[in-house]
Amino acid sequence: MNAPGFFISFEGGEGVGKSTQSRLLGDWLADLTGREVVLTFEPGGTALGKELRAAVMHGQDMGPRAEALIYAADRAHHVETVVRPALERGAVVITDRYLDSSVAYQSGGRDLPGHEVEHLSLWAAKGLRPDITVLLDLEPGVAAARRATADGKGALDRVERAGLEFHTRVRDTFLRRAAADPERWVVIDATAPIGDIQAQIRVDVSARLGLTPVVAEASSLAEPGGGAEAAGEGPA
Amino acid sequence: MNAPGFFISFEGGEGVGKSTQSRLLGDWLADLTGREVVLTFEPGGTALGKELRAAVMHGQDMGPRAEALIYAADRAHHVETVVRPALERGAVVITDRYLDSSVAYQSGGRDLPGHEVEHLSLWAAKGLRPDITVLLDLEPGVAAARRATADGKGALDRVERAGLEFHTRVRDTFLRRAAADPERWVVIDATAPIGDIQAQIRVDVSARLGLTPVVAEASSLAEPGGGAEAAGEGPA
Repeated sequence: MNAPGFFISFEGGEGVGKSTQSRLLGDWLADLTGREVVLTFEPGGTALGKELRAAVMHGQDMGPRAEALIYAADRAHHVETVVRPALERGAVVITDRYLDSSVAYQSGGRDLPGHEVEHLSLWAAKGLRPDITVLLDLEPGVAAARRATADGKGALDRVERAGLEFHTRVRDTFLRRAAADPERWVVIDATAPIGDIQAQIRVDVSARLGLTPVVAEASSLAEPGGGAEAAGEGPA
Repeated sequence: MNAPGFFISFEGGEGVGKSTQSRLLGDWLADLTGREVVLTFEPGGTALGKELRAAVMHGQDMGPRAEALIYAADRAHHVETVVRPALERGAVVITDRYLDSSVAYQSGGRDLPGHEVEHLSLWAAKGLRPDITVLLDLEPGVAAARRATADGKGALDRVERAGLEFHTRVRDTFLRRAAADPERWVVIDATAPIGDIQAQIRVDVSARLGLTPVVAEASSLAEPGGGAEAAGEGPA
């Protein structure tokens, strides 16, 4: 779809392991295919995006439209300066969050119609959709417990404060979207061990990429960040 | 249209006198009608808007979609926190730039379709359009000469650098939009003296507001901010 490159997004709530799983998949794909792999993320994956993200996370309260528009601006810039140039070079681009997060957080979580958020996002990205979207699915109560045990950080940010009910609506939106488009989505139970999750992702991604399906050795994947130092770290 | 309030926008290029004429009109309307008058501006008319404007004006280069989305975010926040609450209080809101500037600068000046920029802007503003839009029309060569004689400021910003050709396309877009919707637009020749311009604006705005048309004394208007106590008939 996005030939000569290949575009993969990871979606799911906070603390479900998106960045770890992205990195493991990127290392593996770089070794296996010899392609350039670009690991990136939204929001805030560019210098401009960092400014915009700061305005949303720490700024004054704003309405859902202003917030959705700022995230869309971040996406427009990220796609134009990072994602699309990499796809045109033939790279595999793996992004931690993309369009579906906007729909889930701004419509499922807040009060905008989902199709409007999606339309806005596609306009921002000139229609760019992922070839594969991996949903790391976790019940929000479990995710919150994971966050709490992670090294004690300061105050929760605005999105986190919105609480469990919000995160439940977000999760439901992800699951509904995945069910409606099984060609694009891969839904993974994020309560499984890291290695098992990665193994399942590799099987599904291999099939879509037309690679020989691989049975990963879960034991070799247990340590986050370990293994293949081959892959290029994301964009500037 | 925006009862109980009344919403007026001023449009036109840089240095045509929008802020001076807004202020003169605001003073006069406050005296004449006894209504609250809110003078405001875009972009950057809110604290969030200032951050966003800084990102656009001084930040790295960005594509037209990212730029349009940031201006739309600025508008969404400005309308939600400043303009709409004032209109609901029954105020006259006068804004220095609004939706038509986005269409003129992002589509006329750059390369986005005008109807897409307008759609984006109306989505941001939940459909809020001005009751009257005053276009202070000036040939871009004249405007550039005016700017140069204004107290020597530092480097031109990014929009200014884009030059005369850009500003000509912007002006053409304003004029085309005005011609297509004469009910909303008032087009004023901005080469006239300040007092004459203000007198003409008062005549046109009076008519739309249902006030008795007033023939202003141009001589009393020569000094910005002065002379507004002239000629008032009863309230709306």
